[in-house]
Amino acid sequence: MAQGETNGGTSSAPTRSTLLLKPVDVPKASDVLARELRERILSGELPEGTALPAERELVKQTQMSRATVREALRILEVQNLVRVRAGRAGGAFVQRPTTTSMASSVSMLIRGQRIKLADLMETREALEPFCAELAARKRTDEDLAVLDRANNDIADLDSDLSAFLQANLDWHVGVAMASHNELLIGFMTALSQAIYAGTENAAFVDENVRTVTARAHKSITNAIRSGDAEAAARRMRRHVHSYAKAALAMDDRQAISVDD
Amino acid sequence: MAQGETNGGTSSAPTRSTLLLKPVDVPKASDVLARELRERILSGELPEGTALPAERELVKQTQMSRATVREALRILEVQNLVRVRAGRAGGAFVQRPTTTSMASSVSMLIRGQRIKLADLMETREALEPFCAELAARKRTDEDLAVLDRANNDIADLDSDLSAFLQANLDWHVGVAMASHNELLIGFMTALSQAIYAGTENAAFVDENVRTVTARAHKSITNAIRSGDAEAAARRMRRHVHSYAKAALAMDDRQAISVDD
Repeated sequence: MAQGETNGGTSSAPTRSTLLLKPVDVPKASDVLARELRERILSGELPEGTALPAERELVKQTQMSRATVREALRILEVQNLVRVRAGRAGGAFVQRPTTTSMASSVSMLIRGQRIKLADLMETREALEPFCAELAARKRTDEDLAVLDRANNDIADLDSDLSAFLQANLDWHVGVAMASHNELLIGFMTALSQAIYAGTENAAFVDENVRTVTARAHKSITNAIRSGDAEAAARRMRRHVHSYAKAALAMDDRQAISVDD
Repeated sequence: MAQGETNGGTSSAPTRSTLLLKPVDVPKASDVLARELRERILSGELPEGTALPAERELVKQTQMSRATVREALRILEVQNLVRVRAGRAGGAFVQRPTTTSMASSVSMLIRGQRIKLADLMETREALEPFCAELAARKRTDEDLAVLDRANNDIADLDSDLSAFLQANLDWHVGVAMASHNELLIGFMTALSQAIYAGTENAAFVDENVRTVTARAHKSITNAIRSGDAEAAARRMRRHVHSYAKAALAMDDRQAISVDD
C-alpha cells in the first residue's frame, strides 16, 4: 500500500498533508468597494457633481456593512474623488481628479525622499523651455494678461521677498498654463510649489537678482506674445539655468557654513 | 433707550442678534491625527520601517476614540505612508513615499481629466531629451546593462506586441533611471505607464516601427555610453518626436474611423 493511502479500513492514522500555506493577502471589503466606485468615476460613468446613493442605499445594494461603506467613501474622500457635504442636502458628490491632488503627492515624494533642490531645478530645466515653446504657439489673450500682471508685480522692487517669490511663481505657472497641456500644468504646479517652499528663505534674492529676473521674464513674455517659439524656449532655458545656478550656489554656501 | 437694549427690567422681549453664521468647516479628528502623523513621517522624525504604537496606545496618548485612531491609520495606509501587517508581529509600519504612489495619482489625473495622448507625448518630448542628456553624464555600468538588456529584447522581432511595448517601456524608464534624478524618474515612470496603457492596442507598431525603434534606441544608448550629452539629447528628441507622430497619426485615423 502506498505511503499516505488511508482508505481500505486500515488502522493507520491519516497522514497530514505536507502542503505549506503562505500568508494570504485578502483584499479588504472597503478597498474592493472603493476600487469599484473609483473605476466608475475615472471612466466617466459617474460624472463630476453626481451624488452617490445615500449610505443606507449603498449598504442595501452592496450587502456590505455600514462601517465598510463608510470606510470606502472615506478612502475616496482622501483621494479627492468625492467631496462629502454634511446636512440636509448633504451626501457624497463625485469630483474629478485635479492637479491639486497630484501636486500633493508630488510634494509628499519630494519631502519624504529628501529630493535635493538641485534635482528640482534640473527637472524645471527639462520642463520649462518646452512650456515656453508651446506657450508661444498656443497662448490666448487671457494667458498674456496673467503674465503681464505677474511681470508688473515682479518689477515692484519695494515689495517684500514673499510677494516677489509669489509673483515669480505666478509667472512660471502662467507660462505652463499658456501651454494648454494639462499634464505639463500639473507637473509644473507641483514642482513650482516645492521650489517655492525650498527657496522661501532665499538669501540669494537681492536687488540684482530681482532686476535680472524681471528683465528675463519680460523678454520671454515678448517672445511668447509674438509667437516666436524658438526664442521663447532658448530664453527660458537660459533664465532657468542661471536662476538655478544662483539658488544652488547659495544652497552650497549654506551647507558649507554649517561646518564653520 | 437704544434699540435692542434689554436691561433695566423693561417688559420688551430680548432682540435676537442679527449675526449671520456661515457653515463652519470643522476638521475631522481622524484628519487632524493623520496630518500630525504624516508630518512626522515626511519630516523624517519617524523613519522608514518604524512601528507606530499599538492602537490602544495611540488611543491613550491622543485621548481620541478607537474609531478615530483606526480611521487615521487607514488614511495613512491609503496614502501609502504606512503598511499595516496583520498577526502577532503585526501593526502599522512607516513607509516613505515612493514614486509608485505619485505614479498612481498621475494616472488618476490622466484618466479622470481625459488627458489626450497628444499631451502625454508632448510632455515626454519635454522630459526625455533632458533625461538622455543627464544620463550621458551620470550613467553607471549597471545603468548601461539595463539599457543593453532592453535593446536586446526590442531587437527580437519575433516577440509579441506586449513584449515589445514592455521592453520599450523598460528602456525609456532605464534612461530616466540613468539620470539619477529622483523626480525625473518619478515623472517618467508615471508618464510611461500611461503611454503604455494608451498605446496597448498599438496598430501602428509594425515591423518597420520596430526596426526604426531598435536602431534609434541603440544610437541613443551609444551616445549615453560614450558620455556625449549633446548627441544623446538631440537623438532622443528626434526619436520621441517621430514615435509620437506615428502614434498620433494612428490615433487620428482611429478617431476618424468612428465617424464612418
